[in-house]
Amino acid sequence: MKQLLDLETPALLLDRDVMRANLTRMADRIHALGCDLRPHVKTHKSLDVLRDVKALSRLIGITVSTLHEADYFFAGGEKDILYAVGLTPGKVSHAATLIRAGCDLTVISDSPDAIEAIQAAARAEDVRLPVLIELDVDGHRSGVEPDGPELIEMARRIAASANLDLKGVMTHAGGSYDCRSVDQIRDHAARERGLTVGAAERLRDAGHDCPVVSIGSTPTAMFAEDLSGVTEVRPGVYTFFDLFQAGLGVARLSDIAVSVLGTVIGHKKEKGWVIIDAGWMAMSRDRGTANQPQDQGYGVVCDLDGRPIEDVYLGIANQEHGIVIARPGEPDLDVGRFPIGSRLRILPNHACATSAQHNRYEVLEDSRVVAEWPRTHFW
Amino acid sequence: MKQLLDLETPALLLDRDVMRANLTRMADRIHALGCDLRPHVKTHKSLDVLRDVKALSRLIGITVSTLHEADYFFAGGEKDILYAVGLTPGKVSHAATLIRAGCDLTVISDSPDAIEAIQAAARAEDVRLPVLIELDVDGHRSGVEPDGPELIEMARRIAASANLDLKGVMTHAGGSYDCRSVDQIRDHAARERGLTVGAAERLRDAGHDCPVVSIGSTPTAMFAEDLSGVTEVRPGVYTFFDLFQAGLGVARLSDIAVSVLGTVIGHKKEKGWVIIDAGWMAMSRDRGTANQPQDQGYGVVCDLDGRPIEDVYLGIANQEHGIVIARPGEPDLDVGRFPIGSRLRILPNHACATSAQHNRYEVLEDSRVVAEWPRTHFW
Repeated sequence: MKQLLDLETPALLLDRDVMRANLTRMADRIHALGCDLRPHVKTHKSLDVLRDVKALSRLIGITVSTLHEADYFFAGGEKDILYAVGLTPGKVSHAATLIRAGCDLTVISDSPDAIEAIQAAARAEDVRLPVLIELDVDGHRSGVEPDGPELIEMARRIAASANLDLKGVMTHAGGSYDCRSVDQIRDHAARERGLTVGAAERLRDAGHDCPVVSIGSTPTAMFAEDLSGVTEVRPGVYTFFDLFQAGLGVARLSDIAVSVLGTVIGHKKEKGWVIIDAGWMAMSRDRGTANQPQDQGYGVVCDLDGRPIEDVYLGIANQEHGIVIARPGEPDLDVGRFPIGSRLRILPNHACATSAQHNRYEVLEDSRVVAEWPRTHFW
Repeated sequence: MKQLLDLETPALLLDRDVMRANLTRMADRIHALGCDLRPHVKTHKSLDVLRDVKALSRLIGITVSTLHEADYFFAGGEKDILYAVGLTPGKVSHAATLIRAGCDLTVISDSPDAIEAIQAAARAEDVRLPVLIELDVDGHRSGVEPDGPELIEMARRIAASANLDLKGVMTHAGGSYDCRSVDQIRDHAARERGLTVGAAERLRDAGHDCPVVSIGSTPTAMFAEDLSGVTEVRPGVYTFFDLFQAGLGVARLSDIAVSVLGTVIGHKKEKGWVIIDAGWMAMSRDRGTANQPQDQGYGVVCDLDGRPIEDVYLGIANQEHGIVIARPGEPDLDVGRFPIGSRLRILPNHACATSAQHNRYEVLEDSRVVAEWPRTHFW
């Protein structure tokens, strides 16, 4: 069995026990509220991780952010897949290939204009596409207004399209990432549910079936107190958590299941710089905590057992060099604390972004490397 | 032959004619100054790109940022490889495997302490490692002072090590990225050369051979006026250029050879948002232009022919969603200008970071896709 010291660095570590606790906590919450999960797999993009997710929660299906993810997970045995990025006519052929192969693929749209073009492409492919209408519940990104006229117009167009089937409504309350307290997240979750269930009711009142009412973001899923009327919840980053979620109050540092293992490769003693071989290629360029009360730089530095070292952080990153420095207000780092060749673990700002920089997880149990789990990439 | 409209998006485009012009310009400059190139391949990580580099310039060898890159390029026929990140004892075994297979691998170090540990590891592997001493010419990152006592101490230790061979000195003038004018870059280049050649002379005066005097960064290589005493130059990003280099005055927008092709997937008319399927997963999270006079957001938006559209930029990026908005000071974007399904090309802040998010280049000649070139990744 490999030890952490045997790994060539940088390497992406996955603490399986921490992940399992995250999976169980979310599943318990959502199931207790009478709902099932359709977790977003864009965070991990790994069939091995999904196996643990399925062992610890009841899933309706999975959510993907690319059709490439759909290909990968369908090839691995997943059938019920929601592609949760607005479909364009140019991707209908790819979606049709999946459906013809037996995948229960559902797509989304938030545009009456797109519906016409997608219908034409679906007809050309001679395929039927199940469609959810995407709602905007918080001004975060995409979606039609839950209480506006476009919702009904979209449903009308989908119902009138020979190759499209209206399955329901979905939203992603990404605005929850801007909340400043747990109370705000709780309110955001109530708003997400209320507006989405309300939109479903409007569709039913207008004579449409609306079997699917799908919501989800990790913060709102963690603090929702009521999911009545909701049929599925789609959190993703809860699988691993990260510093951004910790800064939001949604997780503790000890809940973060992924970290990057690096080795000290140099010192700049007079500056108090410890240089490691994990730069932005290993961490990603994500600086999501920059605007939070606690700016974590490019990551929180931990010892080999994963214990945070509080007075320093990964303050600077080049492509293959990371620089560990004192946090603002702390005295300059005595570089002798981290000798050349010693190893550190770095907690990431954003688990989705950091994991995407690696082709595999080094899976830890009891600080031993028990497996290598591959992950998929690209489009 | 494929057209741009046939590609599934997002996709990484490489305009081969633009790249070739970049390669020729740099080669002409460096060769005219009497020097040869050892270009950094971390920007492209592609044997196909390297084939064009070799056709248009005289190379001494190549520079890599990871031993994985060394494996990939050695397997593709490259023999003379400089691994330009400080070696740690934990990577000696990997380096030894390459050397035993016939690779002329050279490594670097800037630490007297590391030398002892590397020597011990090299003895255990029964391998001889050629070593360059890394110099710090501008306080950018790593390296010993060119005029300090550590330089001579390192040379002494390397010379005393049974398994290490002192080959010379190298530096990377990364501080040139902070220059604010071409004049400053020119001065920086003179300083880089002067300090590095001076360090080589100090070593020779102390009785050491110093056959290799290696410098390089794209900005300093582009504006160096004298390379006497230098044996090789190691620029990388000049192959593709990017918005950061354009902001620095080192390239024009029309010199940028890579772009990301995206498709419009939605509109938020009331906000003036055009949503495309190229988010940070396709562009990277690099915001390197944020502190330049012209902040380019997540990228400059161009039409399908690559012509910049000046009043908008990719202002917001989520994982698989990018949002095109008006630049600050411009009126809100009329979303009707970019219909759903239409395509845009986005110029990246940082070619190394953006290219790393893709597994292949869609190679363009005369706006037609003439080839797919794979690239390598990870460690």
